[in-house]
Amino acid sequence: MLIHLSSWPEIDARLKSDHPLARAVVVPIGSNEQHGPTGLLGTDWLCPEIIAHAAEASDDSLTVAPTFNIGMAQHHLAFAGTISLRPSTFMAAISDWISSLARHGFEHIYFLNGHGGNVATIEATFSEVWAEWSFAEARPQMTMKLRNWWDLPGVTGLCNRLFPTGHGMHATPSEIAVTQAAYPERVKTAAYAPQIAPVGPIRDALDYRDRFPDGRIGSDPAQASPAKGREIIDLAAPALIKDLHAFAAEPLPQD
Amino acid sequence: MLIHLSSWPEIDARLKSDHPLARAVVVPIGSNEQHGPTGLLGTDWLCPEIIAHAAEASDDSLTVAPTFNIGMAQHHLAFAGTISLRPSTFMAAISDWISSLARHGFEHIYFLNGHGGNVATIEATFSEVWAEWSFAEARPQMTMKLRNWWDLPGVTGLCNRLFPTGHGMHATPSEIAVTQAAYPERVKTAAYAPQIAPVGPIRDALDYRDRFPDGRIGSDPAQASPAKGREIIDLAAPALIKDLHAFAAEPLPQD
Amino acid sequence: MLIHLSSWPEIDARLKSDHPLARAVVVPIGSNEQHGPTGLLGTDWLCPEIIAHAAEASDDSLTVAPTFNIGMAQHHLAFAGTISLRPSTFMAAISDWISSLARHGFEHIYFLNGHGGNVATIEATFSEVWAEWSFAEARPQMTMKLRNWWDLPGVTGLCNRLFPTGHGMHATPSEIAVTQAAYPERVKTAAYAPQIAPVGPIRDALDYRDRFPDGRIGSDPAQASPAKGREIIDLAAPALIKDLHAFAAEPLPQD
Amino acid sequence: MLIHLSSWPEIDARLKSDHPLARAVVVPIGSNEQHGPTGLLGTDWLCPEIIAHAAEASDDSLTVAPTFNIGMAQHHLAFAGTISLRPSTFMAAISDWISSLARHGFEHIYFLNGHGGNVATIEATFSEVWAEWSFAEARPQMTMKLRNWWDLPGVTGLCNRLFPTGHGMHATPSEIAVTQAAYPERVKTAAYAPQIAPVGPIRDALDYRDRFPDGRIGSDPAQASPAKGREIIDLAAPALIKDLHAFAAEPLPQD
Amino acid sequence: MLIHLSSWPEIDARLKSDHPLARAVVVPIGSNEQHGPTGLLGTDWLCPEIIAHAAEASDDSLTVAPTFNIGMAQHHLAFAGTISLRPSTFMAAISDWISSLARHGFEHIYFLNGHGGNVATIEATFSEVWAEWSFAEARPQMTMKLRNWWDLPGVTGLCNRLFPTGHGMHATPSEIAVTQAAYPERVKTAAYAPQIAPVGPIRDALDYRDRFPDGRIGSDPAQASPAKGREIIDLAAPALIKDLHAFAAEPLPQD
Amino acid sequence: MLIHLSSWPEIDARLKSDHPLARAVVVPIGSNEQHGPTGLLGTDWLCPEIIAHAAEASDDSLTVAPTFNIGMAQHHLAFAGTISLRPSTFMAAISDWISSLARHGFEHIYFLNGHGGNVATIEATFSEVWAEWSFAEARPQMTMKLRNWWDLPGVTGLCNRLFPTGHGMHATPSEIAVTQAAYPERVKTAAYAPQIAPVGPIRDALDYRDRFPDGRIGSDPAQASPAKGREIIDLAAPALIKDLHAFAAEPLPQD
Repeated sequence: MLIHLSSWPEIDARLKSDHPLARAVVVPIGSNEQHGPTGLLGTDWLCPEIIAHAAEASDDSLTVAPTFNIGMAQHHLAFAGTISLRPSTFMAAISDWISSLARHGFEHIYFLNGHGGNVATIEATFSEVWAEWSFAEARPQMTMKLRNWWDLPGVTGLCNRLFPTGHGMHATPSEIAVTQAAYPERVKTAAYAPQIAPVGPIRDALDYRDRFPDGRIGSDPAQASPAKGREIIDLAAPALIKDLHAFAAEPLPQD
Repeated sequence: MLIHLSSWPEIDARLKSDHPLARAVVVPIGSNEQHGPTGLLGTDWLCPEIIAHAAEASDDSLTVAPTFNIGMAQHHLAFAGTISLRPSTFMAAISDWISSLARHGFEHIYFLNGHGGNVATIEATFSEVWAEWSFAEARPQMTMKLRNWWDLPGVTGLCNRLFPTGHGMHATPSEIAVTQAAYPERVKTAAYAPQIAPVGPIRDALDYRDRFPDGRIGSDPAQASPAKGREIIDLAAPALIKDLHAFAAEPLPQD
Repeated sequence: MLIHLSSWPEIDARLKSDHPLARAVVVPIGSNEQHGPTGLLGTDWLCPEIIAHAAEASDDSLTVAPTFNIGMAQHHLAFAGTISLRPSTFMAAISDWISSLARHGFEHIYFLNGHGGNVATIEATFSEVWAEWSFAEARPQMTMKLRNWWDLPGVTGLCNRLFPTGHGMHATPSEIAVTQAAYPERVKTAAYAPQIAPVGPIRDALDYRDRFPDGRIGSDPAQASPAKGREIIDLAAPALIKDLHAFAAEPLPQD
Repeated sequence: MLIHLSSWPEIDARLKSDHPLARAVVVPIGSNEQHGPTGLLGTDWLCPEIIAHAAEASDDSLTVAPTFNIGMAQHHLAFAGTISLRPSTFMAAISDWISSLARHGFEHIYFLNGHGGNVATIEATFSEVWAEWSFAEARPQMTMKLRNWWDLPGVTGLCNRLFPTGHGMHATPSEIAVTQAAYPERVKTAAYAPQIAPVGPIRDALDYRDRFPDGRIGSDPAQASPAKGREIIDLAAPALIKDLHAFAAEPLPQD
Repeated sequence: MLIHLSSWPEIDARLKSDHPLARAVVVPIGSNEQHGPTGLLGTDWLCPEIIAHAAEASDDSLTVAPTFNIGMAQHHLAFAGTISLRPSTFMAAISDWISSLARHGFEHIYFLNGHGGNVATIEATFSEVWAEWSFAEARPQMTMKLRNWWDLPGVTGLCNRLFPTGHGMHATPSEIAVTQAAYPERVKTAAYAPQIAPVGPIRDALDYRDRFPDGRIGSDPAQASPAKGREIIDLAAPALIKDLHAFAAEPLPQD
Repeated sequence: MLIHLSSWPEIDARLKSDHPLARAVVVPIGSNEQHGPTGLLGTDWLCPEIIAHAAEASDDSLTVAPTFNIGMAQHHLAFAGTISLRPSTFMAAISDWISSLARHGFEHIYFLNGHGGNVATIEATFSEVWAEWSFAEARPQMTMKLRNWWDLPGVTGLCNRLFPTGHGMHATPSEIAVTQAAYPERVKTAAYAPQIAPVGPIRDALDYRDRFPDGRIGSDPAQASPAKGREIIDLAAPALIKDLHAFAAEPLPQD
């Protein structure tokens, strides 16, 4: 069930049902940022959306929230089209999403993340949310989990097999392949050099552009193909369902 | 050109071109909130997205940002599936979007809005952004505009003709028709009474639910149909293009 | 009863009484900003104060708070004497006023506003305040209303009759007339051209000064006179009392 | 010159003149809070306003801003009619006032304060404003001063002579006398006991009400009279002018 | 008992005991900032730490928190090694310390302060914390006190006797003597002129450095010696214990 | 050179020198939180302080800031003595430390961290700081690095050799050993069971206490000894010096 394509009575009925996933929700979360000479700017929010929607299409008992499409991408701001929230803004926004979902009775809020640069801020937000309860000596009525889609069981192994060299860390062939599978009419090609991009630390936007002139880090995205992307999606979607079931099975503590 | 389905070099080239719309960008913005017994929770962000994407499909010279899909919907929080930002959070997030887009050289940032409840906060955000420049005695490098899609020239007139009674203010047949045109497989029906919902002031979430038990305000959404939605889209999309051209033609002041 | 010229036991007794307006309070709110070549910088906070105090003078059962005299005037900052809060600051301050008044048992908080530029931020603040309750699934113990003084029943009609041309939107003859009636010793004259000022969009302070070099928008303030101002006050004050009664008669919802 | 009763060209001309006080401004600042059984809720903002306006009336070369009428009065919130800002809100608001005034070229911003409870927050705000410059290794274009009206040279001595016993710290006969001189029609009487109120620490609102049931601290306000108030004003107003001249004579440092 | 050198079961047992100081805690708080040509940058946090630890060493019934070592020192930022929080940051941090300690049942939280520049912000923080309770019409479960170490009974008298001239206000011989007693191997000497530093107002960092080129205000720190420092500590430590007992003996109000 | 035990002229001279580490600074950062039945509450800030001070003692060319002793420990708040900042507060405070140090010309700011729970928030803070520069299209004048002390080259290997079983994740024998080496008089013993504590996810404070009743996660801290701690320190201190040299050798990018 995609929340945004459902009516409120449908969500209400779902929440009141006794399905194991009734009060669990998947929030695809990513970033809109440069992905090298050929990658789509939306790659990092499209990938978790594609996987979550594929999972939902195969099993309607999943509830999927709209996609949180802008994340923490300050280091990519020297490349046109990148949109970033400051970490403090990102924290406030995630926190309001969580409060909204918890307000309705969602007890297991699962963020399926598509951008490594989001991880620290999402985790800090979880702590900010927990802290409200911890200072108040009270029990929260929900719990939260962060999962990067490439950390779903089996996915990284598959990516390594598909792209034994030149996978890299940004504008990777695996994430680009996932978007190619979903948007085959948007496959782009470009010449780039070196074949495998350099690696290095991530700092501010101008420093990033100095180090990684075409935006890639350690990757050779031309290895991507729609077929490989489909293979990844086909592995990731059921892995997500299984992972969500495990999470939703954890009871909330009570006094 | 949809930013999220483009690469950064494509956006970069667009920004450096001399097309009249080269440095203008449309940001669809809305809300994910209950829309009565039959409306989609995503209605308010889907409508501007549908219209903006239709405009872009007919004229690639438009640049369209990803959709800002969560807005100010605190009053709908007593209905399942609603997700809301607090106004202060919403302001911070919009401000970061604007800063990001301006950073790349977008000079005319046009928000196509789908939710009346967003208007005050978006306008307050514009003032917050302008204030940074005004206190500093400096000239901003961009300008911003807010347009509700129903205020595009001709649209309200058409809606009044299509739905002479029972249009109302929330869960209106016009907005629901727009989503039906785009998602015909998601058309929902439900019995509701009274045929035309009551009207009244908007306050907090529990008060809202007391006043408007099924979520509608003044509307009779069963009048919606995919065909009527298509008619609205077909009028709104070219009106958007024209409106954007007028906005983009305003020069930025310089000393 | 003017709060600031009363003692706390007087306000306490009022709150505990059973008068229909016992737990209602009027807060005059405006802005301190340029009002063209002849208007007082205080015009926008003086007008609601003048009207509210006139109403209170005729009917002591009104409770009037001190005047909130600085609002959102960032666009006027290029003119000497303007003082502005940022929207975010304005929201925090209004919110604390509301919390203070509600703390004492005021249940109907009525803002009589004198500055169009305040409207978006005041409405966003109301949403921020409601959101606290909406996220908490709780009922607020008060309700709030915003009314511009020129929207009091009959007032705009009268202004249009008094000033059929050249009323405009800023430094209008009607608002200047109201201040002239109250401060006849401060009536100022100045040559200005054109007779009716231009109109246009409102953005940052330097842009504003470019578009509206003497500060006026669309107005010809020389048409103002103390007598006309008195006429407006005499209409607005009883309209305020009546409007407040209607608002105060709305019961707070309870479970 | 009272800013709110002047036009912007008048303030503009003043700022460009070469009078020693041309770029100095007095901001009366206080609080709206209970002042015992007989004191006006507005006492703490009325006193600095009365004194500043008296000084301005005797010497038009003073520029006086509108009165900042709501301050930090959280400890008085258990008494009806008190309105308080949180310290963090108060800081943001004062900071915006300072930024606005500095924007126009005011170089010496002088806060004439009427509420002891404001002092810490005003001083913290000054530090917050200075910090912006200090972190940036830059020179501010203005300087700020805080002066409580009772600390104007000679005033405390006079108050001690007028009220050798029972002056106290809150709802003092001296401040009440000042308001009586300005608002003789608002003189209130009430029985209270003990004749001289107790003293003690200031904490939260409920604790305050426990310790000081009628709101007074250490004072016997019945000793106030309009004549004594006039005596205080007549001393304080010229002391303010002199103090402001001394402050305005300090040059701003330059590199 | 030093919290940071104790285990949680030890603190837990202490809190549950019936000792008069069981639920009282001393928080040494200061600043890391320049202290003239010879003073240690840590002087202002070392002094309260030294005194509190000396007191605890003589009487284990004192509970001493870790030292809050960075305060409000924006005016010293033009001197290398100074670290400052903005007042708004400082307030947030102190507030979280207080919330943490109160969470465990500490009812009397006593800040032993070593930096005059902290006072306004600490007091504003107390008001911010109280305001939470005051707006909510609730009773806090703790109370707070601020004491500068030089205001402990007898200490200023001793300092005046030890340093009848040239004590001054910053980089004073008394505070430097206290650090010399504790860190005799870190005694520094330097030539400076004039022998007694100038005095004046405190504003931003560049202004401060203009006025006080070597950092001192009004002081002649070469008069310090480890022996004099020991004398001060030996007086201050028992004074702290006595003062804390008096504070801890105040019962928390209850309804 | 320990900043807090130095004078400002000493730090100033260091900054102006041409030593490879002249403009590098180590900031020990940790947390004050429960460390199981025997660990010191200060363990997480004491460990990086002990290691950094040991390094400085062996090589005075290191500049070490005061210790940032309170971090993000919301999950430990159900255990007495824990003090935590909220992530948002922590971010503001770290940011002010960085701004202060950068203000003086420190170009390489190295955080030696002692608490895993701090990592996300520190990294989010770095992004917040970088974002200021990235949005402004400007180059920062410093760079930052985070290193957990156990990630210094060789340290984890040694810890695994010393404690092949029962090392765990919280209240580990290695961190407790480090504090025992530095504070041998504070070695504590206690009976606990099971010998090796359980593991699990970290959420809010009450949940944490349910899962980990005595505070430990996966550890058997009784294996700690002062001698083992000394071994760890003796490895970590030179590793820190080497790591800092490598970091300080990275030039800041320039246009």
